[in-house]
Amino acid sequence: MINKNRFIAVIGGGQCSKEEAKLAEEVGRELARQGAILVCGGLGGVMEAACKGASSQGGVTIGILPGDSRQAANPYIQIPIVTGMGYARNITVVKSAQAVIAIGGNYGTLSEISHALQSGIPVIGLNTWSLSRKGQQDNSIIPAQNPTEAVNKALELATDQ
Amino acid sequence: MINKNRFIAVIGGGQCSKEEAKLAEEVGRELARQGAILVCGGLGGVMEAACKGASSQGGVTIGILPGDSRQAANPYIQIPIVTGMGYARNITVVKSAQAVIAIGGNYGTLSEISHALQSGIPVIGLNTWSLSRKGQQDNSIIPAQNPTEAVNKALELATDQ
Amino acid sequence: MINKNRFIAVIGGGQCSKEEAKLAEEVGRELARQGAILVCGGLGGVMEAACKGASSQGGVTIGILPGDSRQAANPYIQIPIVTGMGYARNITVVKSAQAVIAIGGNYGTLSEISHALQSGIPVIGLNTWSLSRKGQQDNSIIPAQNPTEAVNKALELATDQ
Amino acid sequence: MINKNRFIAVIGGGQCSKEEAKLAEEVGRELARQGAILVCGGLGGVMEAACKGASSQGGVTIGILPGDSRQAANPYIQIPIVTGMGYARNITVVKSAQAVIAIGGNYGTLSEISHALQSGIPVIGLNTWSLSRKGQQDNSIIPAQNPTEAVNKALELATDQ
Repeated sequence: MINKNRFIAVIGGGQCSKEEAKLAEEVGRELARQGAILVCGGLGGVMEAACKGASSQGGVTIGILPGDSRQAANPYIQIPIVTGMGYARNITVVKSAQAVIAIGGNYGTLSEISHALQSGIPVIGLNTWSLSRKGQQDNSIIPAQNPTEAVNKALELATDQ
Repeated sequence: MINKNRFIAVIGGGQCSKEEAKLAEEVGRELARQGAILVCGGLGGVMEAACKGASSQGGVTIGILPGDSRQAANPYIQIPIVTGMGYARNITVVKSAQAVIAIGGNYGTLSEISHALQSGIPVIGLNTWSLSRKGQQDNSIIPAQNPTEAVNKALELATDQ
Repeated sequence: MINKNRFIAVIGGGQCSKEEAKLAEEVGRELARQGAILVCGGLGGVMEAACKGASSQGGVTIGILPGDSRQAANPYIQIPIVTGMGYARNITVVKSAQAVIAIGGNYGTLSEISHALQSGIPVIGLNTWSLSRKGQQDNSIIPAQNPTEAVNKALELATDQ
Repeated sequence: MINKNRFIAVIGGGQCSKEEAKLAEEVGRELARQGAILVCGGLGGVMEAACKGASSQGGVTIGILPGDSRQAANPYIQIPIVTGMGYARNITVVKSAQAVIAIGGNYGTLSEISHALQSGIPVIGLNTWSLSRKGQQDNSIIPAQNPTEAVNKALELATDQ
């Protein structure tokens, strides 16, 4: 039932624009259609939109929550994980996935991108951060033009840790 | 499909006696029969035996792993969560559940019992630790005589945090 | 100046009785007199009393805080460490020490005792928890009759991890 | 003795170029000269060079270590904090400081920069990452031309959380 080789994290702001929500929802739908499990931080914004999309297609959603209560989970989370560890849960979000899709996002999302890249977990970006280091561009975030391309790239690159 | 009001953690040693494994397997079976989701630390011993039991009845198993790789999960874990946080994951194991069943166990299990009691999460004990504080017995760990009683008490006391 | 081979953690309730505060203050004084560094969770109760005692003798105090702000530290903390990780900081408190002195305490203290014993760090107890496992007493917590004995035993048993 | 209003984190790679080590050592020296406490991740590379510089001027150095043993600390760490939490310790490094100086660095450093910016802690950069978000430059990392300027800016911007 649950294919544990297809855990994909969707990361992005706890608040987001309508456009980002639309992208996230479509990413969630496509992940569910392709039988992937959606891992996220469990809260609102991009996380909620992605879970809404996945749920609409019967997908499984995991929310790795920062606080002490599962009540904070968005209504589309089926499996709430209550870490009690604040932003340290960002590390658990990405490590639990085999690839990460970043949509927009603020510094919390950037921390998740960093932790993923540090762990060798592929990151696909939809209108998100880009990085330079010592004046040279770093191309580790793999760009996608649309939700379907993001999901296809994520599933293609998903690597078992 | 997944009833998020019935997440029960099963805790105990990563290595265990045959008798403890038998108890754990029966606890896992009974949890699955009653539609509960099994949360554990994802490794061997009591954790693996409980997951084996749950799997035999079609139950869902979540393993909250201490290290950096899902490869460490026992073969019955369907949903591996990779925390990357060492023993701090013990806190996440109990906080993600609405009641905890402790079977035997060493100091790691005792830390999980402590974190659960600190968070107001009921702990049912099967042949496990007992506690005194300043010379007076502490009866917070609710004893059970057998796996079925442990599961019944856990589901009865399960409290939404 | 700072002798890093003599880091001793003092653990106990964030609220405590007058008697426990008196014990903790004397433990802090004696640690400072013997040149040890006091590590604690940085908050009130036993932690504050121990830091008060250490400060009165010119000792160094480290407070490993659960929240996101150093403002929560008691006024005797010289070195506030802000973990942002909630009760997971309990693990850091004991792992940063070479021996632990437990005074009274609730379930949070019990979790620290457990994490210390799991890591092989000696625990000295002053009117604190006692443990039985499967009906047999566990004597891992080394009892002390008074603060001076507790400090002497802690420094004697302090082991470099 | 210890001025707790001047905790400055120095972050950068566990391995680094000679040039980066030189910058880090000078940052450490200048921090110590100005009475600041140096907080870092406790390991080699930029962390070790900065601690070496601080030590040469009698400064205090705190190393917040990822693993389970203080033996991993570089030889200039006076106060080893053993978190046992892997890379989650990156969060504790920046949260324990009132400003952060980033020198070079890889994805781990980028995660620390992100966590600092998310927490509103100023970040000064010496030849390190630069960021763009959705195609627009993000100027949150405050550039410095040399170690002295970096230290002056860090102390000027240090904010008590």
